[in-house]
Amino acid sequence: MNHKWNGTLDVTERHLTMAEWNDLIDYKLEHNGSDGGAVINLHRDDTRTFDAICIGGGAGGRFGSAYLRARKGRQLVIDRWPFLGGSCPHQACVPHHLFSEAARELDLMRWFSNKLWFPDFTDKRASILELVKVFLAGRGTAHAFMNWQSKEQLDMEYILNASAFVVDEHTVEVGGERFQAKNIILGTGATTVLPDIPGTDLKGVYDFASLVEELDYEPTRCVIIGGSKVAIEYGSFFQAAGCPTTIVSRSPLMKTASLHHVDEDLRLYVVDGMRKRGMTIFEGAEPVAIQGKTRVEQVIFRDADGVEQCLPCDFVFIGTGERPNSEHYREVLGVAVGGRGEILVNKKMQTNVPNVFAIGDLIGPPMEMFKARKGGMTAARNIMGEPYEFDWQDYPDFLHSTYEVTWVGLSEAEARDRYKNIAIIQMPPKGIRNDEIPLPCAEGSMLYAFMIPELSGFQKAVVDADSRRMLGFHHVGFGAKDAFQYLDHLMRRPGGITVDEMGEMNELFLNPEHFIQLSRLRAGNESLRDL
Amino acid sequence: MNHKWNGTLDVTERHLTMAEWNDLIDYKLEHNGSDGGAVINLHRDDTRTFDAICIGGGAGGRFGSAYLRARKGRQLVIDRWPFLGGSCPHQACVPHHLFSEAARELDLMRWFSNKLWFPDFTDKRASILELVKVFLAGRGTAHAFMNWQSKEQLDMEYILNASAFVVDEHTVEVGGERFQAKNIILGTGATTVLPDIPGTDLKGVYDFASLVEELDYEPTRCVIIGGSKVAIEYGSFFQAAGCPTTIVSRSPLMKTASLHHVDEDLRLYVVDGMRKRGMTIFEGAEPVAIQGKTRVEQVIFRDADGVEQCLPCDFVFIGTGERPNSEHYREVLGVAVGGRGEILVNKKMQTNVPNVFAIGDLIGPPMEMFKARKGGMTAARNIMGEPYEFDWQDYPDFLHSTYEVTWVGLSEAEARDRYKNIAIIQMPPKGIRNDEIPLPCAEGSMLYAFMIPELSGFQKAVVDADSRRMLGFHHVGFGAKDAFQYLDHLMRRPGGITVDEMGEMNELFLNPEHFIQLSRLRAGNESLRDL
Repeated sequence: MNHKWNGTLDVTERHLTMAEWNDLIDYKLEHNGSDGGAVINLHRDDTRTFDAICIGGGAGGRFGSAYLRARKGRQLVIDRWPFLGGSCPHQACVPHHLFSEAARELDLMRWFSNKLWFPDFTDKRASILELVKVFLAGRGTAHAFMNWQSKEQLDMEYILNASAFVVDEHTVEVGGERFQAKNIILGTGATTVLPDIPGTDLKGVYDFASLVEELDYEPTRCVIIGGSKVAIEYGSFFQAAGCPTTIVSRSPLMKTASLHHVDEDLRLYVVDGMRKRGMTIFEGAEPVAIQGKTRVEQVIFRDADGVEQCLPCDFVFIGTGERPNSEHYREVLGVAVGGRGEILVNKKMQTNVPNVFAIGDLIGPPMEMFKARKGGMTAARNIMGEPYEFDWQDYPDFLHSTYEVTWVGLSEAEARDRYKNIAIIQMPPKGIRNDEIPLPCAEGSMLYAFMIPELSGFQKAVVDADSRRMLGFHHVGFGAKDAFQYLDHLMRRPGGITVDEMGEMNELFLNPEHFIQLSRLRAGNESLRDL
Repeated sequence: MNHKWNGTLDVTERHLTMAEWNDLIDYKLEHNGSDGGAVINLHRDDTRTFDAICIGGGAGGRFGSAYLRARKGRQLVIDRWPFLGGSCPHQACVPHHLFSEAARELDLMRWFSNKLWFPDFTDKRASILELVKVFLAGRGTAHAFMNWQSKEQLDMEYILNASAFVVDEHTVEVGGERFQAKNIILGTGATTVLPDIPGTDLKGVYDFASLVEELDYEPTRCVIIGGSKVAIEYGSFFQAAGCPTTIVSRSPLMKTASLHHVDEDLRLYVVDGMRKRGMTIFEGAEPVAIQGKTRVEQVIFRDADGVEQCLPCDFVFIGTGERPNSEHYREVLGVAVGGRGEILVNKKMQTNVPNVFAIGDLIGPPMEMFKARKGGMTAARNIMGEPYEFDWQDYPDFLHSTYEVTWVGLSEAEARDRYKNIAIIQMPPKGIRNDEIPLPCAEGSMLYAFMIPELSGFQKAVVDADSRRMLGFHHVGFGAKDAFQYLDHLMRRPGGITVDEMGEMNELFLNPEHFIQLSRLRAGNESLRDL
């Protein structure tokens, strides 16, 4: 083979264009195994010892590396894939968002079938396989950009398409070469846990990663085992695409341990909405077996009453959550690990082993992007001599059904447990039915508002009527997610944010959530009441 | 006539349901003229003089009234329509958002025609008339809700479906009855200015208000006179619906006096995007005449080179902006008025006439919801003895093309004028083409990202590299608008918000704008550079 991207490539002195990076990554991915040649961007004339080597160039490793560089440290990031960014653009957040956007559009197509300019969509199926192929054809662009940005804008050193072997807490071996570092940052993520039942190895059983890598037929009937975010998100997409989907979950949906602060009214709106769209949901259910001759034909489970049931299907999707890939580091480095395989770290991201940090999904839930990236930054700061602590236990959260569902702070029930005097500001207001008032609405829900008002969404703000502080925000609809990043900051800052301060902000009307103007309608009252 | 909503209705002791309100308002609107009977909600046993009477029950009057009540004041709001809320839910923001959502969905249909699950949409037209009818059939719900909420939750007094005559600064006459008040708050809005050319009275000439009230045919070729927000927003909808649309504007689009802080890169992305979608845009153009026998047949204008051109059409839409309805108050009360008819007020919303306040569109641009509502609140506070000032000159802004376009703070050019050392954080980064990297993207732009990356949007943050403060945020895409309310607050608070503080927030990834994580990638650097 004599292709220009063949073998080991040192790109240190080269400035590849986006198109070249795209092409290189495609080639390397395609020839994985037969041509494992590394992609090397290494300042060999820099004689400094690395301040840190990041094992894993996902979000955490990349952001940690960028911050180390920004603080004038020297870093090296190593990844087995030929690109930086990790699973997010390759198999996780990005395809998830693509599928969720598809779910939203398909949902609109179904409700508005034969109405307005929408075609008849009654028995129409959208191809899941085709959308997977669209994703595969396009994902390289994000990969190319991360490699380009990390080199050209962030001055990082990296070795890609290569496996890193951790020799000890200061030594990493890549392609036969040993690199020394003052610290090691571990960030190699997590992998789906398969349920411990027969049949998970049958053809037709997927998780979010194998779905994009291996799907090669059009699913026509889906069973999802598990009730994680991924189960709700991918399930909503399959159903909207016209592939009837059943979820078999132990816990009630959105009542799993990994999701906190879920308001019950919000939860009911979301789960009822999924059922309204034709999904079948079994909660309190125990999977028993996946069965089939050469490929999946049915799923057996015990329902909440203990009765064994059988669900015919040609597609099984595992949504039981992920487990950190920590085994190797436990063995080699002796890092302490928790009960679910998560590497234990303090708020500086330090493990029990001096100079060894761990970040991202490898330290357990929440397996969210903000935690990976800020974990990387936190490790970098501490390595560069700036004591810095990161508490990732409280954060804004979201998931997609065919809606965007976002929340931050306390649920109404949590707030009533902790405070004497709670005021609720919500749409529709308590006592008004969803079909009576199409609020909240804005971009994304206006068509529903005018034709199917009960589908336009739900929102709630929880206020401590004594201190007047906002305690929680909860939203089902479209277009509000971005705001919750800042609402989280405002609630978290010293003193938090009061209903009166909310009322003095400048809303962009129609805003997808109406928290500002509704706060203003109550702000003047000495004694806060519900709205 | 003996209908149950016939004649004057005193609803003070009644608690109408949403459905009853809806029905009542429908009846009153339908019988306007033949049955002008007022809807009265008045606490006649309350012997206190009114602290204020609000003339006009739009956003400003309603929020002012709510705040007065909250502060234990007594108010009366009077509106000529049978509902509170004013033009927003009846003719302005709400239909505008409905049409903009339609524009977005139709745009998706056109780009994805015959791709994925999308039908062939090549020569397809969506009915503008039908969507207007959908709006008309549904708008009563919002009206009903405002009447319900104002009475049941906000304890307001009001007289609706009745004209108010201001006798003097303490006296208002309604239906032959005189009411005394300590103060009067004027909030009766603005009306489209027709350009001073022949033919504006021809059938087929509309503005945003008459469009929803009077459209009775399907437009097939549109000319928009004017370059206001409304011109861009409605024009983008008409074009997306399949009605070829030409804009004839004096100023370059988005460079009008009423829009401030528009970043040039953002502007070009939006205007190029409109052209890319088939709109014809003449800038520096002077309208000359609208011509036709009984209805519009063509528009004559002089182009930027002074050459007269003729545009055949069956639909003319006026987008030259609005003028405050101030004439009556100038005559009766002697309130001082500016050059464009706007009532002049100070930051307490006081006019030159003691005890007379003015709010909303009546005081001139920006004719935005936040200003009307906060103006109402400001008047109420001052009336209730709490000195309070409101500066409405700086605010976050937005408009819709087929995108959501949002901005706050300084444009890059403004920032470079005022500060020595500016860093820009943008997507795509300077030097990378829109078709090379499908960023920014999230909900709403994922399908574009994977199939037509140059359509996925644009974003820019402007940073003062010396103080590290964020100076401006600019976004074209979907789903970011809501965040700008809080970004505005964060920039405006004492000390503002720095790039380092941004980098410590918890993003909800994929977030429609990527300001937090991009800030984090630069936060560690002592010397800030572009990203």
